[in-house]
Amino acid sequence: MLNHITQTTLLLDEEKCRRNIAMMAEKAARNNIRLRPHFKTHQSAQVGEWFREAGTEAITVSSLKMARYFAMHGWKDIMVAIPVNIRDMALVNELAEKIKLHLVAVNIETVQALAKHLQHPVNLWLKIDTGYRRTGILPHSHEELDAIVALLEESERLQFTGVLAHDGHTYKQTDAEAIRTIHHTTVFLLNLVRDRYKARFPELQVSIGDTPSCSILQTITGVDEIRPGNFVFYDLTQQHIGSCSFEQIAVCMACPVIAKHPERNEIIVHGGSVHFSKDSLVGADGSLIFGRVVELTENSWSEPLEGIELVSLSQEHGTIRASKELFDKYKIGDLMGILPIHSCLTADAMGNYTTLDGKRLEHLSGIAK
Amino acid sequence: MLNHITQTTLLLDEEKCRRNIAMMAEKAARNNIRLRPHFKTHQSAQVGEWFREAGTEAITVSSLKMARYFAMHGWKDIMVAIPVNIRDMALVNELAEKIKLHLVAVNIETVQALAKHLQHPVNLWLKIDTGYRRTGILPHSHEELDAIVALLEESERLQFTGVLAHDGHTYKQTDAEAIRTIHHTTVFLLNLVRDRYKARFPELQVSIGDTPSCSILQTITGVDEIRPGNFVFYDLTQQHIGSCSFEQIAVCMACPVIAKHPERNEIIVHGGSVHFSKDSLVGADGSLIFGRVVELTENSWSEPLEGIELVSLSQEHGTIRASKELFDKYKIGDLMGILPIHSCLTADAMGNYTTLDGKRLEHLSGIAK
Repeated sequence: MLNHITQTTLLLDEEKCRRNIAMMAEKAARNNIRLRPHFKTHQSAQVGEWFREAGTEAITVSSLKMARYFAMHGWKDIMVAIPVNIRDMALVNELAEKIKLHLVAVNIETVQALAKHLQHPVNLWLKIDTGYRRTGILPHSHEELDAIVALLEESERLQFTGVLAHDGHTYKQTDAEAIRTIHHTTVFLLNLVRDRYKARFPELQVSIGDTPSCSILQTITGVDEIRPGNFVFYDLTQQHIGSCSFEQIAVCMACPVIAKHPERNEIIVHGGSVHFSKDSLVGADGSLIFGRVVELTENSWSEPLEGIELVSLSQEHGTIRASKELFDKYKIGDLMGILPIHSCLTADAMGNYTTLDGKRLEHLSGIAK
Repeated sequence: MLNHITQTTLLLDEEKCRRNIAMMAEKAARNNIRLRPHFKTHQSAQVGEWFREAGTEAITVSSLKMARYFAMHGWKDIMVAIPVNIRDMALVNELAEKIKLHLVAVNIETVQALAKHLQHPVNLWLKIDTGYRRTGILPHSHEELDAIVALLEESERLQFTGVLAHDGHTYKQTDAEAIRTIHHTTVFLLNLVRDRYKARFPELQVSIGDTPSCSILQTITGVDEIRPGNFVFYDLTQQHIGSCSFEQIAVCMACPVIAKHPERNEIIVHGGSVHFSKDSLVGADGSLIFGRVVELTENSWSEPLEGIELVSLSQEHGTIRASKELFDKYKIGDLMGILPIHSCLTADAMGNYTTLDGKRLEHLSGIAK
């Protein structure tokens, strides 16, 4: 298979990927909660089918466009987990007519606009800011919450379904205990908000969503559903956090060697920021790394090699710094395997996948815009 | 026009863009050198036509795939300005049959592979590392150069055409004098290499390529062609370097406001790293900025506003921090204009353009992969 790869390619190990899916589906089943996986990581109809085979029925996406793509591929229960863009009411209504659409609001203006312009029922979730401080309503903003809930109570088409949070701050941790504390705080705060409105909305649900806490915790209580996304592929960032082992990372870039510079032990590959994205990790010596080199084999790839790293990116070039010994192993025209720092962004930049048996899978970003 | 924009959109001001093209075409004509613009910035057949109307006949691209795209759109003289990927000889030969193809080599292994597998003539350039230290042959590596040139002399299909460099280190400067010095050093070194082989190859050419030096210098001597790319749109990085004024920046993101957080004067827009890319600049207070806010008007947009900046990006969310006064001006559902840090990467991430009169232009990355 590797001999047929002529250009920079994103490899996908289907077996590892299916194992990651099965692991999370099993964890959700064991805890008696719904897995509503975030499909923004893979954005692929075919990878979506692997979830379907593992029993997934409800999914999460991060834009209305992505919801339309997966609706087209037969998904009937979709949450758009970003504050709804009220400029795009036409698409909201188009989707609400066809599927069970879940929208997220973080302020009364959005709820007012929805109440006014919706032509079909939707499920509305309030996003609560439990500590990440990106967006969401603060759990103690009772006045704001009460005003929104009063509006929801009156609205014919808006069905107040639950409260949710995204613990983006777990991605900055490398200590499992810190991640547990963040998770328990979030579950506590979401339940406080739910309890405030439980009498009037007895079916209200609680939903959380980050890959680190969903990966690290074995027992998850106090929530009705989880929405992790990145776990489908994992990456070096998640390994650094402690969410996964190297062995679970299911995607790997394959980049042709186009130049070698023996005077500084640097190898240049065709693979730059338009392929990897510019996300980085801080390496052992404090410098940034943009990927780690593995050995490609016919069946998959090795763990990262020591002493060889992707240290800089321009638009189409990647610079790999190596020990003398590893530098000597590669020659012009070889294919190098490189694990990505952030698989969501790398997949979005690449626009498709090649499985180890040579199948081509699509990604929404690689479909004509 | 703005009322019709419902989703995150990359706006292109055709007038500014055509002015940038005309300015560089005129400078090249005045200096009696060839403009071989780098099309990796726009990657658009339609923007390519604006160059054609300004007299451009020869172009530069950064991958064989991009060469194929522009060949399909009628370009007959294309340089692939990255060390050639010898795994993709099939595509090299396909292109070499159809167009005047210019390839770049930085080592003897590549030249040997080309000499062996080429089925049609190509123009070969040697890339010289004149100080950037990404890739290229050092100008004093006479043994290596001589061995390659000897091979070229023997080869039937490889036509030794010239020596070129890319001064990527000018992008780290903000002092016009430093940029001039880098430029003059490069021209000096390239001419040294040319002179070494001039007797045997009297037609050898010299080509340089960075946007900062091509923008800042008015008089350019000692070279046969220039290959700037970014100038077609410019961006905040080029303005920071001193290559352009704010007024010359020809692309601007339009992002819907999806949330507002009065307690910290932060506005959340639908526009994240999958839209902007993750390139950043260091702001006045040392913190990173990912874009600057402008006022959108029906005819174009203003200069950047003071006291309001895009300060962080996640996959689909952008966080804008504003003064109280500017914070109050925007409401949920408004469209915010944001100038990109690096227009090449933003255009690649977005995959298409919308002109101010509502035309949709393509970008190679938005065409089915």
